[in-house]
Amino acid sequence: MPTLYIHPLSTPALSTAFMASALDAGIETKIVNLMEGEQMGEDYKKINPMGKVPALDDEGFCLSESAAIMRYLAKSRQSDLYPENIQAQAQVDQWLDYVGYHVRTPFSRIQFNTMFAEMLGQEKDEKSIEFGRHILSTSLPHIDAQLKANSYLCGEAMSIADLSLLATLDPADHLEVDLTPYPHLKAWRDARRSEPFYKHVHNHYGEEIGL
Amino acid sequence: MPTLYIHPLSTPALSTAFMASALDAGIETKIVNLMEGEQMGEDYKKINPMGKVPALDDEGFCLSESAAIMRYLAKSRQSDLYPENIQAQAQVDQWLDYVGYHVRTPFSRIQFNTMFAEMLGQEKDEKSIEFGRHILSTSLPHIDAQLKANSYLCGEAMSIADLSLLATLDPADHLEVDLTPYPHLKAWRDARRSEPFYKHVHNHYGEEIGL
Repeated sequence: MPTLYIHPLSTPALSTAFMASALDAGIETKIVNLMEGEQMGEDYKKINPMGKVPALDDEGFCLSESAAIMRYLAKSRQSDLYPENIQAQAQVDQWLDYVGYHVRTPFSRIQFNTMFAEMLGQEKDEKSIEFGRHILSTSLPHIDAQLKANSYLCGEAMSIADLSLLATLDPADHLEVDLTPYPHLKAWRDARRSEPFYKHVHNHYGEEIGL
Repeated sequence: MPTLYIHPLSTPALSTAFMASALDAGIETKIVNLMEGEQMGEDYKKINPMGKVPALDDEGFCLSESAAIMRYLAKSRQSDLYPENIQAQAQVDQWLDYVGYHVRTPFSRIQFNTMFAEMLGQEKDEKSIEFGRHILSTSLPHIDAQLKANSYLCGEAMSIADLSLLATLDPADHLEVDLTPYPHLKAWRDARRSEPFYKHVHNHYGEEIGL
């Protein structure tokens, strides 16, 4: 059975969990116990030698990196979450990477130093948090403008770029990232979080571990 | 005429310049004067509202984000630098993002704080440089292992993932990132830098501005 290896606190992993849920194509989801280092074990390294989540094992074809997994699942399961036209694909690719580098990367800085550094016995880097918040203040206005002009990031149909953005923003409340200055983004997010594919994964970020 | 907007110090922009050079398909390259803020001007924002390089204007179809541009150019110009088979595509996608998030992002931390922070009147963040070097010490061994087992990142044929890696590593000497612990990576890099597509862009990083 095709299996997706995730952890519910990893936002790249969550984007692939949303994808599997939206596809409803019989993909099993397994949680990798990151706290106990399962991702560094010999069994998991056969799936992903990089020792990271998410990873997909599609009947022996193993793949890592969340956007690669989402593109592959859309193409192999004939989903229009990644369109066929090459200019439409290019726009989804553009927004996937804009979200990845300019929203997810600063979110990761904030999340690492707020939620994980202490757990790992590392010092909290306030300057890194501040830089992350600064980058978000430059990128989120572009996302808000895009969602003012369009129902979804790439026009009038949902795509894997939306799933990536939704997952990236999932810990916003826990990280005290205020989205009220971005009303179109906030409305888009509220609407997506009420959809069955989201509710099938969880009701809110961290629910799986009691946050 | 299709036009690619770049800056020679931007490694994402360089990856697209290598792509245009490798394709040899009549794509003009224009340098955007980042130092004078040309990227924030009204003319450039018609090409890329995000105000960043690289961007492509393909006869009115405008696109940003380097990997999106490389995929689009490969598909629209029928280049096998992005293969047609969906599993082969997925592997290129995986390595593009592994390089992007685990090599380029830490390189950017080092580069920003070493080359640009002072220019922009910002304080150099030594902790960020140190974290960048730490991430590279975890990711470059995986890249080296991959290039020990294969001629290129995704097997026996060059792909856009190699162009992205080549561009990312281009400022290694300036940033004092020592690649000698990674002999297979170093040999792959030396070989690519002697190819015509590289030499057509420049002989070494920063040559265009006299570095």
